[in-house]
Amino acid sequence: MDADAKSAVVLLSGGLDSATTLAIAREQGFRCHALSFSYGQRHHQELDAASNVAQHLGAENHRVVPLELGALGGSALTDATIPVPKSAPDETIGDEIPVTYVPARNTIFLSFALAWAEVLRARNIFIGVSAVDYSGYPDCRPEYLSAFTKMAGLATRAAVEGKPVRIHAPLVELTKAQTIQKGIALGVDYALTHSCYDPLPAGACGRCDSCLLRRRGFEAAGVADPTRYA
Amino acid sequence: MDADAKSAVVLLSGGLDSATTLAIAREQGFRCHALSFSYGQRHHQELDAASNVAQHLGAENHRVVPLELGALGGSALTDATIPVPKSAPDETIGDEIPVTYVPARNTIFLSFALAWAEVLRARNIFIGVSAVDYSGYPDCRPEYLSAFTKMAGLATRAAVEGKPVRIHAPLVELTKAQTIQKGIALGVDYALTHSCYDPLPAGACGRCDSCLLRRRGFEAAGVADPTRYA
Repeated sequence: MDADAKSAVVLLSGGLDSATTLAIAREQGFRCHALSFSYGQRHHQELDAASNVAQHLGAENHRVVPLELGALGGSALTDATIPVPKSAPDETIGDEIPVTYVPARNTIFLSFALAWAEVLRARNIFIGVSAVDYSGYPDCRPEYLSAFTKMAGLATRAAVEGKPVRIHAPLVELTKAQTIQKGIALGVDYALTHSCYDPLPAGACGRCDSCLLRRRGFEAAGVADPTRYA
Repeated sequence: MDADAKSAVVLLSGGLDSATTLAIAREQGFRCHALSFSYGQRHHQELDAASNVAQHLGAENHRVVPLELGALGGSALTDATIPVPKSAPDETIGDEIPVTYVPARNTIFLSFALAWAEVLRARNIFIGVSAVDYSGYPDCRPEYLSAFTKMAGLATRAAVEGKPVRIHAPLVELTKAQTIQKGIALGVDYALTHSCYDPLPAGACGRCDSCLLRRRGFEAAGVADPTRYA
């Protein structure tokens, strides 16, 4: 296997899922190039977490690409005029696509990962999406990832030269609890990670969809939740 | 047909092809939202041209999204350390993918167009690529565009709601000369457009691949070339 085949771009948000994904990629022997985005998030804590996680889990390097997704509007995560919805801890998260959905986010993220992979001659991209305990985003489904892979196989110089990139989504069929158990087994320090969509100075809000999924994941995994809640 | 079905995001570089594409979209009755990118190009003249073209051809609005593609490196168009190749006017342009290729550029551009289309509830994206007189970029081929469309059909909230976006590439089977003839028939003022990869203060270089394709296109079309060459 040539060297490029063991290099990977790993999308790293600083959250629980992408940290676990980086740990899995490292366990599988990949040299990992961590890629984060600064996209007008309300929560810059996420990027600090990503930086700490990249170092903790032995990424080769970590790059943050600034994106102005807020300029296009349309999501509570990038548009400060749309409130992040909150639920009580025992409430059910809705089935509909929520207002925290960022239009075409994973498509944009994967496109940048594809560009960086081509520059690095890396043949792998890791993304920490799950189609099980997810927030109803269409771009987390296996059929979406499969279609992206086919498109990427026609898009790049490397693909034309017979070296298409492979998209790895090792969490796609895992529940949040299974993800946490996997990460704990690999030594991930989840205290370094950040999931909250709407953090307060004193810590995570505990009531957005992302906090609820995380909190329930730790409960179901039987693992103490290291999150600092406000 | 609902209103959204006649709205389009049009990728507009300020060059000859995208200007013609905008004119075609307008002729077909689309309300056009022009989208350009500032991506560390050497040639900011391109963005001035895009702004003038958007106004000239009656776009509803024009948005410029800043991208830091230069941060990922890998192209003579974004990396000032890689020289833009030059040829004599009668030289053949190589078959290989040139160093002016920007990794995954059309994938990134179309991903942003997809995001903006979703926010606008527009059901159409126009892109001015050609698979005939092109520079050997893999992401200009019809099979690539078809794969992107399939991926987009799984990526967004609109797609999940049964309203997938359609990608229009009206130049994909046209030669540069045919594109120019079409644009002239639609009243495009090509003096407003800008194609050169490496412009000088006094005008276009006349020797990069993009200048050569443009110059030969005007010759073959039998149309006077309005370009100001240095």
